[in-house]
Amino acid sequence: MRHTLALAARGRGFVEPNPMVGAVVLDTSGQLVGEGWHQKFGGPHAEVFALAAAGDRARGGTLVVTLEPCCHHGKTPPCTDAVLKAGIARVVVAMADPFPKVAGGGISILREAGKDVHVGLCEPDALALNAPYLKLIRTGRPWVHAKWAMTLDGKIATRTGDSKWISGEESRRRVHELRGRLDAIIVGRGTVVADDPLLTARPAGARVATRVVISASGDLPERCHLRTTAREAPVIVYTLDANAPKFRGWAADGAEIVAFPDAMTLDAVLADLGRRRFTNVLVEGGAGLLGSVFDERVADEFHVFIAPKVIGGTGAPVPIAGLGAAQMAEGLALQGVTFAPSGADVYVHGFARGM
Amino acid sequence: MRHTLALAARGRGFVEPNPMVGAVVLDTSGQLVGEGWHQKFGGPHAEVFALAAAGDRARGGTLVVTLEPCCHHGKTPPCTDAVLKAGIARVVVAMADPFPKVAGGGISILREAGKDVHVGLCEPDALALNAPYLKLIRTGRPWVHAKWAMTLDGKIATRTGDSKWISGEESRRRVHELRGRLDAIIVGRGTVVADDPLLTARPAGARVATRVVISASGDLPERCHLRTTAREAPVIVYTLDANAPKFRGWAADGAEIVAFPDAMTLDAVLADLGRRRFTNVLVEGGAGLLGSVFDERVADEFHVFIAPKVIGGTGAPVPIAGLGAAQMAEGLALQGVTFAPSGADVYVHGFARGM
Repeated sequence: MRHTLALAARGRGFVEPNPMVGAVVLDTSGQLVGEGWHQKFGGPHAEVFALAAAGDRARGGTLVVTLEPCCHHGKTPPCTDAVLKAGIARVVVAMADPFPKVAGGGISILREAGKDVHVGLCEPDALALNAPYLKLIRTGRPWVHAKWAMTLDGKIATRTGDSKWISGEESRRRVHELRGRLDAIIVGRGTVVADDPLLTARPAGARVATRVVISASGDLPERCHLRTTAREAPVIVYTLDANAPKFRGWAADGAEIVAFPDAMTLDAVLADLGRRRFTNVLVEGGAGLLGSVFDERVADEFHVFIAPKVIGGTGAPVPIAGLGAAQMAEGLALQGVTFAPSGADVYVHGFARGM
Repeated sequence: MRHTLALAARGRGFVEPNPMVGAVVLDTSGQLVGEGWHQKFGGPHAEVFALAAAGDRARGGTLVVTLEPCCHHGKTPPCTDAVLKAGIARVVVAMADPFPKVAGGGISILREAGKDVHVGLCEPDALALNAPYLKLIRTGRPWVHAKWAMTLDGKIATRTGDSKWISGEESRRRVHELRGRLDAIIVGRGTVVADDPLLTARPAGARVATRVVISASGDLPERCHLRTTAREAPVIVYTLDANAPKFRGWAADGAEIVAFPDAMTLDAVLADLGRRRFTNVLVEGGAGLLGSVFDERVADEFHVFIAPKVIGGTGAPVPIAGLGAAQMAEGLALQGVTFAPSGADVYVHGFARGM
């Protein structure tokens, strides 16, 4: 199953909003005779690849799969049909699929057909692997990654606003890699004004992230990279009044303007992104937006790059503003934290909750 | 020589303001027949231990020593006498000793006595090992360590001032270990007011650090741990007007009050600490003092503990205030940086200059 989970992970960035899935077929003697993974959204499922590779050797054998096989006609025929047709005798599944059209149905069909089905092997790992997929199904909200780069004294720019560069080349390369597998990159108005970012993945990754600006006022620059490239990669602006004259140019240039006329909350934005079946989104700042993300506890996963540089300054901006915790005990202690060198920097990765 | 340098390092914290020194004696066949290190300020030098251990086997042999042997009567007799008396034929020295009463004299005496003297083996390592000793001799100022502990979002306390605890137990243990080998722990007035710290090493280390408060105004609390324990471990207050009535109680309780009536600069404070032959001092904060330390570029070595916690807050204090760098290029890029896990935290260690 560990190997099968590793196969599944190869689909990261390519399969969403589908789950990552890996499958392995063992013949009657326990020999591995086929393997596969879900490679691309809309493409064949992992079981199909594995069973095809195994061919006749699957008969009487065991299918090891990281997620319950599907039992519905979606973009591809039901995997349960393929499993039955291949003559598999035993199915080992890491976890059931909560997707409403499956939700235990695949396991039931296989059991009713007389197959020996075991569910729950390495389940915690399978849950962790597909945590973003599971969150989207459960809550309708995407998995929220928060990222910032700061100096060793906790600054994201000098007192004059210079931030080129806080982190080194290797850390910036990792950020681009991250952008290249996510569905949206979200920034606040201040970041657009201060940094005029492109927010694209360079080089391009598995998918093209939608660039999202959250700006209640909508006071965005008339000329900026996001607007001029809105036809090359999607741009959405969330704001209070989509019909304000100031958006005409943005809309004409290809940006989508989404209004929350009553009150624009982070949750409303995330719900809208969830409706688009965005599985993973990345909040890149600035401090105000990350402050709201922290105060409303909406971040799931953290990526922090710390450069061994000191720049000082009472007036230098910090990564997270907002209200903040009153007591240390109210702070967020990250779980599953890892530290890794990233060029001259250190890359800290962790989760808001235990996985 | 590498082994001899490691022997030398065993004296760290015990020998200052003397240098750390290690020595090894090899017999005529190259066998190690004696080793030693300078163990304690005022105690016998490394060569004496190594030669005593070697006894007659030193005759015709080689002395490997990390620092030029001394040639003056200080707290102990000249090591050059001991080397000559032991019949050593060859002396390998990592670096000359800039201490004014030695300064090449030891090497000259040995050469004049016909010994084969080689200087410079592993010299960079020897220079790094005794960088604090060398700085004190060269500049009259102690080696300045700067330390802070912060969250993953660069805060040293919550917006309400709660900082118990930012870092974990293992990191706090490391800070106490550091305090226990240094000559002074320096804080600003704000830290005394906000945290009422003891600034002692618990458990006690190789030496008892003097607790130093820098406060131009001298507006210190009437009751605080530093004052009530001033007879247990020394306390010095640097201020503008030592005769201000507000210091009577502090002085009566055993604190030393040192005035700089014209202008109190960090450099003047460090010069005074250097006159006391303090070799290593540690600035523990707060942000204002560390801001001056950064702005005046007086720190030599950095110890930063980063806890994988997020607390947010526009109003939460940061580790380094002061003016700060205007451009990234004016920041301080640490040299010789290492990252190490410290319990759940990461410990970042580095130097202001290459070593």
